[in-house]
Amino acid sequence: MGNSKSIIQVLNNHINRNGHNLLREFSDFLALPNHASSIEDTRKNAAYIKDMFEKRGVNVEIAELPGASPCVFGEYRTPSAERTMLLYAHYDGQPANPSDWHSDPRHPVLRTDTIENGGEIRSFPSPGEPIDQDWRIYARSASDDKAPFIAIAAALDALRENNVPITSNLKFIFEGEEEIGSPHLAEYLQKYKDKLHADVLAICDGPVHQSGRAQLFFGARGYAGLDITVYGPNRHLHSGHYGNWAPNPSLLLVHLLASMKEPGGRVLVDGFYDGADTLNDDEKKSFSTYPDNDEKLKKELGIAQTEGDDENLIERLLLPSLNIRGLDGGETGRQAQNVIPSSSSASIDVRLVKGINPGAMLDRIETHIRRQGFYIIRDEPDNETRMKYPRLVKVVRHVGYAAVRTPMDIPAAQYIRHAVERIAEEVVLLPTLGASLPLHDFDELLHIPIVGIPIANHDNNQHGPDENLRIGNMWYGVTLFASMFSNVIK
Amino acid sequence: MGNSKSIIQVLNNHINRNGHNLLREFSDFLALPNHASSIEDTRKNAAYIKDMFEKRGVNVEIAELPGASPCVFGEYRTPSAERTMLLYAHYDGQPANPSDWHSDPRHPVLRTDTIENGGEIRSFPSPGEPIDQDWRIYARSASDDKAPFIAIAAALDALRENNVPITSNLKFIFEGEEEIGSPHLAEYLQKYKDKLHADVLAICDGPVHQSGRAQLFFGARGYAGLDITVYGPNRHLHSGHYGNWAPNPSLLLVHLLASMKEPGGRVLVDGFYDGADTLNDDEKKSFSTYPDNDEKLKKELGIAQTEGDDENLIERLLLPSLNIRGLDGGETGRQAQNVIPSSSSASIDVRLVKGINPGAMLDRIETHIRRQGFYIIRDEPDNETRMKYPRLVKVVRHVGYAAVRTPMDIPAAQYIRHAVERIAEEVVLLPTLGASLPLHDFDELLHIPIVGIPIANHDNNQHGPDENLRIGNMWYGVTLFASMFSNVIK
Repeated sequence: MGNSKSIIQVLNNHINRNGHNLLREFSDFLALPNHASSIEDTRKNAAYIKDMFEKRGVNVEIAELPGASPCVFGEYRTPSAERTMLLYAHYDGQPANPSDWHSDPRHPVLRTDTIENGGEIRSFPSPGEPIDQDWRIYARSASDDKAPFIAIAAALDALRENNVPITSNLKFIFEGEEEIGSPHLAEYLQKYKDKLHADVLAICDGPVHQSGRAQLFFGARGYAGLDITVYGPNRHLHSGHYGNWAPNPSLLLVHLLASMKEPGGRVLVDGFYDGADTLNDDEKKSFSTYPDNDEKLKKELGIAQTEGDDENLIERLLLPSLNIRGLDGGETGRQAQNVIPSSSSASIDVRLVKGINPGAMLDRIETHIRRQGFYIIRDEPDNETRMKYPRLVKVVRHVGYAAVRTPMDIPAAQYIRHAVERIAEEVVLLPTLGASLPLHDFDELLHIPIVGIPIANHDNNQHGPDENLRIGNMWYGVTLFASMFSNVIK
Repeated sequence: MGNSKSIIQVLNNHINRNGHNLLREFSDFLALPNHASSIEDTRKNAAYIKDMFEKRGVNVEIAELPGASPCVFGEYRTPSAERTMLLYAHYDGQPANPSDWHSDPRHPVLRTDTIENGGEIRSFPSPGEPIDQDWRIYARSASDDKAPFIAIAAALDALRENNVPITSNLKFIFEGEEEIGSPHLAEYLQKYKDKLHADVLAICDGPVHQSGRAQLFFGARGYAGLDITVYGPNRHLHSGHYGNWAPNPSLLLVHLLASMKEPGGRVLVDGFYDGADTLNDDEKKSFSTYPDNDEKLKKELGIAQTEGDDENLIERLLLPSLNIRGLDGGETGRQAQNVIPSSSSASIDVRLVKGINPGAMLDRIETHIRRQGFYIIRDEPDNETRMKYPRLVKVVRHVGYAAVRTPMDIPAAQYIRHAVERIAEEVVLLPTLGASLPLHDFDELLHIPIVGIPIANHDNNQHGPDENLRIGNMWYGVTLFASMFSNVIK
């Protein structure tokens, strides 16, 4: 193997010969339920991963902490390795409500294109059958974040079968609680620190750029969340017999939410934007790699006007955000009932940028809620509490993690950048991903540079109904990991 | 039978002997699904009612119009009758979401008390077993509005078996679409007008007073409704990758709803209160029969402060109301997902008072929506429409019916009032019920005075989860109808 072209050829041949097996293995893996609320389920995923990687010559250990989903550690030792790379991915997924999906989120289906483009369900390919790069697999976690597991495993297969030498030590950490805010990650990192020495941490999560270009990111927004419930009468009331007299919690809730953020996007919580770090020169320079894709994206998404209309997407992602991710005050449409509901709820997620502490951000929001005249409680109220406070709100805090941005110019990061550039024509460099990743714990506890290497298509419906992965992006992942692991051209 | 005391005694004996049969018949009737969206279901209810009343010597005819739930007409002829009374009830019910109920809304259960008071499920009584008046039957439509059917049938049984003469002609009209706004009632009334000549229309619906006292009402609020859906991106988006940039429809919706009504209860839609008729002297006088029960009611319902805090319930019911009956912008709590939803919805019901036209009221609200910068559409938008209007809302109008208040002093109304006073110690006289009833069509098309004779307990959870009827209220109903039908003392 003398040059990059031939490696790409070798990989393409490998994919053509083995694509059907790879999709079958992916489908089996996706069929395992993986919400972190069920440790029984996450254990099955961990066992599946152990088996998957041991088959590829990786030493695997499943670690557990009380009340936590298991964390899977792996190591692939390379004699006289030039560097050690630690790869992170998470195998847990968001909840999925099957009634919102076109097919069962736990029963992966292959479609000939996206649902929006009229893609039809087709059978998984048989050996030798050509596979179209625009096919999609639909299932929860197809893109977020089970795809890298299969891509890494396939890259190891391809290199071994074609006698391409691996030139780095590889370490793996696979988390099972990312989608619930990584509550045990720090404890795992602390306890297993010795296994995790490396020159660089590669985060295998997130999508490539909306333009379809390859993308590397050097940080991610942090996360905090609140569930708020506003109370009305202690039982649902008939809206005719009591409408105008009994307070409606949905009315109080919409006023509270409206007070938090202008329709144009400006958050009105006092101090919301305070304390954010400014960008350094490398980060500012990286903007030149960022394609001006916003108008195309607006058209794709059917958006006439964005929040903060004169700022583009990348600028907006460098600010903290407050998003009403869920809203519930009784049934609507044909199922609507003529009631004053007993309570109404909203779920809010906050994305943090570097320099803002998640707990302090939640404090700012709670101060705002109190200023609107609400009394905050932490549990369901009894009648005495209801009688005492005309505006009563239960707030459940989810203190996630802070944002991280790491330097873009250190050697290990440059190494990965070159590995990507060998197989991709143009690479977008992002100072931060818009999404949140638990990078903070890595940054604090491991002190190694972090580079994000996403592989999923941007239109993957991550977290929502009809999550999917484009097959071409899985092939990109296989090629990307093979390029990172082998590095025959430096 | 010489005096009212002995009639009450006779009725009590009848109830003691036959209560178990009566509850069994009620339970069978409640088990029939009755949402007006299924004509197949409503037909089964109509057939059940026909059988129930024919057994009691009533001539019954089931009428149908295309696309409508059947309307059941009945007549019980009395030679040399002193008057003709037309009784109205509806056999259809609100939708019910079983997951919100303590027991299946379609599988009636008997409890020893309310769920709130720790009432336990018990078996239906066997013959001779004493029946507690505080027991409750839980099922959809137990109070709204299947109870009167059983009470009327039992009253006819009791009078016949005890040879108490019936002194009026009785006519019945049983509707099957009240809970969806009575879309075909006018057509039925027009077509079958000749069957409906009567001296008075008795509306068998609604609850007795919150104090437990008997109640008569001489009108009801009208009804109009809107379903509104606000649009964001054309698919759910990850709130990290797009939060701050893609507009969130829930944010736009809460601002729109907050603009419609102050937290304190004042509706901000221009002209909302315009055109309401003032009360006449009889109506004002009736306030003296209205017990001051508001503080007790606030305590019972866990309400610290009502909307329009210094006005009491009856005053508030004489105003039009705007109520957010449903609100939906994605999942909350443990099911919440980190998304920007593609659309968010609210369902609004408007209660009208006499003098305000429902269509005109919906126009006022739509004008308000447009003034908030929204473009109103009637169907799901295509991408071109989405790209054209930054604030896009789908409004589905439900033009219900106008409010009615009829005179309180005419002879037929006084006759019913005396029938109630014979069996109840104190009677509350209400110029209007807070709830909406399709009285407008009766008023316009039949031109007969209307008196409402509710029997259900006020805490019946009508329209909400755990709807129930207190057994004592069923007994009250049996006694009330027997007193109305027999009238041995004038």
